[in-house]
Amino acid sequence: MLDVCLLGTGGMMPMPNRWLTSLMLRCGGSDILIDCGEGTQIAAREAGWSPRHIDIMCFTHMHADHISGLPGMLLAMANAERTEPVIMIGPKGLFNVVRSLRCIAPELPFELRFIELDQNTEQYRLCGYEISCFKVSHNITCYGYSVTVPRKGKFNVDEARRLDIDVKYWNALQHGETIKDEATGRTYTPSMVMGAERRGIKVVYTTDTRPCDNIKRAASGADLLICEGMYGEPGMEEKAKAYRHMTMQEAAALAAGAEERPRELWFTHYSPSMLKPKLYLDEVRKIFPDAICGRDGMKKELMFDED
Amino acid sequence: MLDVCLLGTGGMMPMPNRWLTSLMLRCGGSDILIDCGEGTQIAAREAGWSPRHIDIMCFTHMHADHISGLPGMLLAMANAERTEPVIMIGPKGLFNVVRSLRCIAPELPFELRFIELDQNTEQYRLCGYEISCFKVSHNITCYGYSVTVPRKGKFNVDEARRLDIDVKYWNALQHGETIKDEATGRTYTPSMVMGAERRGIKVVYTTDTRPCDNIKRAASGADLLICEGMYGEPGMEEKAKAYRHMTMQEAAALAAGAEERPRELWFTHYSPSMLKPKLYLDEVRKIFPDAICGRDGMKKELMFDED
Repeated sequence: MLDVCLLGTGGMMPMPNRWLTSLMLRCGGSDILIDCGEGTQIAAREAGWSPRHIDIMCFTHMHADHISGLPGMLLAMANAERTEPVIMIGPKGLFNVVRSLRCIAPELPFELRFIELDQNTEQYRLCGYEISCFKVSHNITCYGYSVTVPRKGKFNVDEARRLDIDVKYWNALQHGETIKDEATGRTYTPSMVMGAERRGIKVVYTTDTRPCDNIKRAASGADLLICEGMYGEPGMEEKAKAYRHMTMQEAAALAAGAEERPRELWFTHYSPSMLKPKLYLDEVRKIFPDAICGRDGMKKELMFDED
Repeated sequence: MLDVCLLGTGGMMPMPNRWLTSLMLRCGGSDILIDCGEGTQIAAREAGWSPRHIDIMCFTHMHADHISGLPGMLLAMANAERTEPVIMIGPKGLFNVVRSLRCIAPELPFELRFIELDQNTEQYRLCGYEISCFKVSHNITCYGYSVTVPRKGKFNVDEARRLDIDVKYWNALQHGETIKDEATGRTYTPSMVMGAERRGIKVVYTTDTRPCDNIKRAASGADLLICEGMYGEPGMEEKAKAYRHMTMQEAAALAAGAEERPRELWFTHYSPSMLKPKLYLDEVRKIFPDAICGRDGMKKELMFDED
């Protein structure tokens, strides 16, 4: 199970009643925060999600509306008595920016560990998640993130019985251990009793970018694609191109063009000038029917498929 | 006339429904902002006060809850098409902190000019205001600010007539100019026709401090004293002392002890643990009757006294 909370949906500047775009993910007691603009700590508090368990922070890019809330968030985590290290992931240069911003949060009771991205795509396995970072197309270096909760294959009880494996070893085999049975001298590997890895849960988050192939590839097979839809009104295509942003229609076309269509698309990172993105939803759903206008604090519990 | 808006009233961390403590002052088209924690730009927008005309920014001290909103505020000012310089006033070290924080707001269409404070008290005349900065008593260097809109003396029409000064020179004399009358060869100075400077309008703002004599002196004769009241509930005196903060009762005693009592006292910088400061107001008014619990967005129009 993966809990998702879209903390904010605004782009450029925080507005009364619209926080800056930020996503929080929660699975197995380990939380991920993606982007942290001014006010994100308040948005999290409003949503009822504690900053205490944020083990990983990902940053799409170094523009203020995606990182200006970092000092406050770090202090809120300290105030929540966090002591465990936090992994910070973002484009090359992240360490220096964080060091600068920490001039007003110099003392923290936890360590920050940095992963700076410089490849087209990079994969990490952290805290039980599989995180794929993919470069997108903004006016400065910017990454999108695909976060997957993997799911093991099914344990084959019949096969375990057929091989006469003692029940006391089943749990260890399910958890990937290789077993040497002392009584019989035989060795059992997980592959002997575990089916192929099953479909996990995948959430993809990308903003501040033109449409690009990396997004289409990442979005394929996602349970949820959260994507910038900066403008919805007609005639904004040129502005979107000039500032390296994306319209709702372009985001919908990306989702529709993915090899395996994402199951749902949420728009976010609305322009302050676009007060009612829902006005354009009917039109956008002609391109991708499972599109939804993200709202601040919108939550969803994503489950593994039934077998 | 001086317009006052208490943008926020929170201490330590921004809360849903309580912005961090910050004050905005407006007179003659020139605005002052004192303190700028995370979310202050949103609070100003909620209050309907544009960031465009902030000519002066004062910072009490360099703790995050008083300056973390600066990059966002500077970008909001840029977005509002400000091009005029901004004067930044704060304790020694301000320049370095601002330079660090500006790693995410490197390009601004206006210049920042710095006044770094290191004396016990310092006075400046800027943009029509008289600003007095006074050191207070926190766990790092911290200043309070007294802002006065001065008021000229009255123009003595009878005396101007008696001296036979041509009416065409009256306005210049009222504006402080010395006049050489070409027709008569006589010289007129403002002091010949202007009465003594009258009582202006004075607002004093101080937070994150123990009670101290500098505050009492500054508060004397103020129209409005805005003062930290971090705690109100009984038994918090020791905590206030330990963290170098002030209770509502201590703030009221400061106001009551000023040589010339301030006309009104607003509390601010409430602890996140104090949800209802009004619970303690009756008790506090026994010490200083004209005490009011500040609320986010509270405004007041302060006028010159009637003659």
